[in-house]
Amino acid sequence: MELILDKNKKREHLYLEVFHYYRELIMEKKLPPGSRMPSLRKCSQELKLSRTTIENAYLQLAAEGYIISKAQSGYYVTDIADRQHTSVRKTEKHAQTPCRFDFASSGVDRESFRFDLWRRYIKSALRQDERLLSYGEPQGEADLRDTLADYVRERRNVLCSGEDIVIGAGIQSLLHILCPLLDQRRTVSFPNSSFVQGSTVFHDYGFQVDYRNKDCDIIYVSPAHMTKWGDIMPVSRRLELVNYSAAHGSLVIEDDFENEFVYLQKPTPSLFGLAGGQNVVYLGTFSRLLLPSIRISFMVLPPELSALYRKKADQYNQTASKAEQIALCQFIRDGHLAAQTRKLKRLYSVKLKALRSAVREVFGKDSQIQTGAAGTSLALTLSTTLTWQELQKKAQTNGLRLQLLREAPGKITLILSCSSMPVADFVPACKLLKNISQIQN
Amino acid sequence: MELILDKNKKREHLYLEVFHYYRELIMEKKLPPGSRMPSLRKCSQELKLSRTTIENAYLQLAAEGYIISKAQSGYYVTDIADRQHTSVRKTEKHAQTPCRFDFASSGVDRESFRFDLWRRYIKSALRQDERLLSYGEPQGEADLRDTLADYVRERRNVLCSGEDIVIGAGIQSLLHILCPLLDQRRTVSFPNSSFVQGSTVFHDYGFQVDYRNKDCDIIYVSPAHMTKWGDIMPVSRRLELVNYSAAHGSLVIEDDFENEFVYLQKPTPSLFGLAGGQNVVYLGTFSRLLLPSIRISFMVLPPELSALYRKKADQYNQTASKAEQIALCQFIRDGHLAAQTRKLKRLYSVKLKALRSAVREVFGKDSQIQTGAAGTSLALTLSTTLTWQELQKKAQTNGLRLQLLREAPGKITLILSCSSMPVADFVPACKLLKNISQIQN
Repeated sequence: MELILDKNKKREHLYLEVFHYYRELIMEKKLPPGSRMPSLRKCSQELKLSRTTIENAYLQLAAEGYIISKAQSGYYVTDIADRQHTSVRKTEKHAQTPCRFDFASSGVDRESFRFDLWRRYIKSALRQDERLLSYGEPQGEADLRDTLADYVRERRNVLCSGEDIVIGAGIQSLLHILCPLLDQRRTVSFPNSSFVQGSTVFHDYGFQVDYRNKDCDIIYVSPAHMTKWGDIMPVSRRLELVNYSAAHGSLVIEDDFENEFVYLQKPTPSLFGLAGGQNVVYLGTFSRLLLPSIRISFMVLPPELSALYRKKADQYNQTASKAEQIALCQFIRDGHLAAQTRKLKRLYSVKLKALRSAVREVFGKDSQIQTGAAGTSLALTLSTTLTWQELQKKAQTNGLRLQLLREAPGKITLILSCSSMPVADFVPACKLLKNISQIQN
Repeated sequence: MELILDKNKKREHLYLEVFHYYRELIMEKKLPPGSRMPSLRKCSQELKLSRTTIENAYLQLAAEGYIISKAQSGYYVTDIADRQHTSVRKTEKHAQTPCRFDFASSGVDRESFRFDLWRRYIKSALRQDERLLSYGEPQGEADLRDTLADYVRERRNVLCSGEDIVIGAGIQSLLHILCPLLDQRRTVSFPNSSFVQGSTVFHDYGFQVDYRNKDCDIIYVSPAHMTKWGDIMPVSRRLELVNYSAAHGSLVIEDDFENEFVYLQKPTPSLFGLAGGQNVVYLGTFSRLLLPSIRISFMVLPPELSALYRKKADQYNQTASKAEQIALCQFIRDGHLAAQTRKLKRLYSVKLKALRSAVREVFGKDSQIQTGAAGTSLALTLSTTLTWQELQKKAQTNGLRLQLLREAPGKITLILSCSSMPVADFVPACKLLKNISQIQN
């Protein structure tokens, strides 16, 4: 094998030819592993090329693992030709027991989602070739924003126009746009430490994150999801919060997560509505109503922030899929979101009751249950000699997924979610949980 | 009012004419709120147009809220004409002349994208009900990450595993995760001020943003897109940069934007490869290869950052659509991305040459053209007595979209993109540009 060079080519190419030449020699083991490469000087003389060209070729060979440089000694061929068949490590697949019963899921009930219908809307959206050939509007598609404005006005008394709405792929994407607009403010309060995704973004932007501190510059709340077992904020507290924050000039961020699943009373009014649209940012998402894998959330900005945002709008790209935005817009307009919400609310209300019965039946008086007015979960406190780590390990081995709320000596409190588990599994899943929690370690 | 159609126009326009025709009837209440639209069949007979054309027009009317579909019954006019003057302002529709020639688009060539194929992959992804019922992996779907690792190893010498890859909805979503990992570093250098979306994120996180300053802690570069007219970074400069940054402990962020469209020489090696995967973050995106509306980008993290990221991975939600990730994974595995890349590269190379010829033909010696080795644009400097604002206004009135590079007394330099404009429009578009630039104000 010989290196034949076309000297008329531009200089950038030469080094690549040298590179390819040596790569072949190495892979065919004509230059075997461990052998020393010719020195730069010698090689440059032999091939009648500049030292720089040779050096570039060697650097590239080194970069791709064909040779390795040893200080004060030169370059040596690696064992890459031998390693040829051991591929670069693949992403680890955890060899776990498959999950039989999932109490920790925040997915949707598999029977509840009309895949056929959603597919039809996506298909129709994908037919709008012209629209899909361009980038989306940074703020989100205008027709979806208008539709969302109608939606939150009707359902949550949030009075706004499509101009005040920003669409994004999930709450975090929206907070990434919101936080830089709030640079006059330095402290933020969350109700507790459980919404890590939210507090992380504020922390990343240098905000001081605190909990239950109403004197912060920003108050982040989820009024329909105050606890993991579905406590909601009563109207009196909502009014108090709105008035207090207005008096103290603090901004409320209202994450209206799961407001659709408030069962035991009429849906409570939104903070945004109670505050007359002043000093409240409203956040909404469709993850619990449609598919969690559809990443579309939105925020409604109060007037000053809306004006501020529009000045910067072009600096941020839209994150949500345009096809999914087009599909969702038509899906809402045709009334399917409202229908899906009614259906899920009924379904989860029934399932949550069934889960409570199953827990009572299986655990009897050994258990302490906490339930709220909303959501898809309850809290169960177990008496057990196991630690959480021990219990979790046993659960994994038995194909049971659990979610810890808190641990105390002799007691473990779990959050049991009914959302994606079929009702028929409630009793067997509870029995399995009881069994493993009573085994001595 | 009667619909008079110019049958010689391209089919894309016909449905828009039907759309405008009905919109006017609706807004003037000649079709009053609540009235039923003619059936597709009847309308298609009357107007002597295909059902598809009518259906597209109706879908557009529905998308903009003029009509609404009722199941098994047809389309009905909404009360949009009444709501016209009600208080809630709708998202402003800029009453502009429709764009005839778009020199500013970064969309893809409409002929180049196989919608039918992509639709098939999305359809197939949407059939994976089980997978879509849960949230996606925060880091991105594992199979797509493994596929991307193979892809960048083969095409860009980027040696990594799927574990080092993070997927996100666009480069900004990735920078929102990357920046907080870099909190030891305070300064970042961009090649120029044109990538506002990138510098904004760093600025939002409190980094000091500078330009062409190689002594910054972070160097952000797009080696295949150094200028808007397609200059690329030569290999010698790449090596210099990699060596300098390694010696000074700075991190290089390599945004490999448009590396697929390097025509005039072999694709140059990636900085990530040249540096042996140390101290370089590699960013890739599919916006220019597939549809800009598909929001999937990825970053390859070097070992230390990859380890750091995995500790925080659960704090960030995935932003890219799961269905689109599943579709893209299979699309790449079946070789369609490689085929699409080859096709686009050929196409854009030919189109760019054609655009250059058209500019020379129309502007002759009055023009100064700059072209590079890559990309889909050229720079054209015009002698004109107009200011940019005046020229832009005239262009808008005439349905021409322009993009300014820089302005000097008596001279305006524009960036003309060939990517989404059909070749047949090049000469007429240039002629129009010449005409409006020569009119005295």
